[in-house]
This record gives sequence, C-alpha cells and structure tokens, in this order.
Amino acid sequence: MSTIESIVHRYIDSWNQTDAVRRHAAIRELYAENAGYTDPLAAVTGWDAIDQFIAGAQQQFKGLVFSLSGKIDAHHDTARFTWQLGAPGAKEPLVVGFDVVATENGRLRQVYGFLDKVPAGA
Amino acid sequence: MSTIESIVHRYIDSWNQTDAVRRHAAIRELYAENAGYTDPLAAVTGWDAIDQFIAGAQQQFKGLVFSLSGKIDAHHDTARFTWQLGAPGAKEPLVVGFDVVATENGRLRQVYGFLDKVPAGA
Repeated sequence: MSTIESIVHRYIDSWNQTDAVRRHAAIRELYAENAGYTDPLAAVTGWDAIDQFIAGAQQQFKGLVFSLSGKIDAHHDTARFTWQLGAPGAKEPLVVGFDVVATENGRLRQVYGFLDKVPAGA
Repeated sequence: MSTIESIVHRYIDSWNQTDAVRRHAAIRELYAENAGYTDPLAAVTGWDAIDQFIAGAQQQFKGLVFSLSGKIDAHHDTARFTWQLGAPGAKEPLVVGFDVVATENGRLRQVYGFLDKVPAGA
C-alpha cells in the first residue's frame, strides 16, 4: 500500500474512532498542524477544529460506521475516493460522500469533501 | 452564476484558448500567481508552467474541444466537476476527466485533476 493509500485508510479509521483521546491523537498524526478540512457543512483549520467537527458528526450519527467504497485513485500528492456512512451490515448507506485529499510530508494538508447522498430531510 | 462557477467556466475556456497571447493572459487572470495544477500527467506551479502544460495538451489533442459535462458542485472555496475532450459534435468523448478546484480571492489556488477515460493505448 502506498503512503497516500495508507493515509486514506487511517483517515476513514479516524472518523470511526469515538474514544476522544485516541481520536485526537490519530488526528495529530494524520494531519499537518494547520491542515484544512472543507465540506458542504464546515470549513475548519487545525487539529482541534477538525477533531471537534468529527466529534460532532459522530454524535449526530451515533452507532453508524464510515467505510471506504470503491478504490482509491491516487497520483502525486493527491487522491480521490468515495466513502459511505451506515449502520453496520446495512444494505443501503445513509450518507455517501466523496473526498479529494492533498498530502504533504506524509500527512494530510487539505481535505475537500462533497456529498453524493444525504439523509432525507437533512 | 456564482464567482466559483464563473471561474470554472473560464477555466474550461482557457483550455480551448489556442492563441498563445490570449491564453497566457487568461491564465494570469484566472490563477493566483503561485497556483498549483496537479493531474496524473503533471504537477506544476505558477502561471508559466501551467500555460506550458496546457499548450502541450492542446498540441497533443489538436482540433479537439474541452467542455464541461454535468453540473458544477460548489461550496465554500471549492468545486468539483467533470469535463470531456472530444471532436466538435462527436458522440463519444476521447477523454473524460474530473477536477476539484480550490479558489482564493476569486482566483484558482489549486487544481486537482483526475482521469476517468483515457484514449486506448495512452
């Protein structure tokens, strides 16, 4: 697995890490200190703000699991991939998203997130 | 049309601008001076390098036209969209690509390009 693919897998893992101490540690390892994260719901910068945003999403979608869907398409310092969020074992995901990430020195520098499926009424 | 949608349309236009002087002028208006452009074939920085890369692609695909396909999905300072390259009026494009762009102060700061269809043998 290339560095960038390993980063993407650890990125998905961090969204499932609900232990606050472990999640914060994972984010500090995974992202550059002043990394940016932008999706339709948030534009935040830095370890603490990214951690708080992920913690909020975990609260909102308690018990659901993030997973990679399809393959990672990577080149140079960037990659694109689709992910989904759903109940463990569920046939249909509740949310489908798509991210492009930019890396630098083996860490995430910027995440650009987009949504392909959102819950009805959201 | 939002600023970012207008930028995306001018971005596609710049790929079709084969007059060297006009293309270079368009690129200076469209991109921040130290903007980055990364796709599977190139990772370049700055007006001149971006211009040279586009000029090379125009040489390689002479007579073909770049066009936006589908809608632009934009939020905050970023957008994603799919484009195609083909002969004018052709049913099937030769190349299909997908870009995420990041903007800053009304100009492109970074383009992340990916390819969904490439010519056979390329």
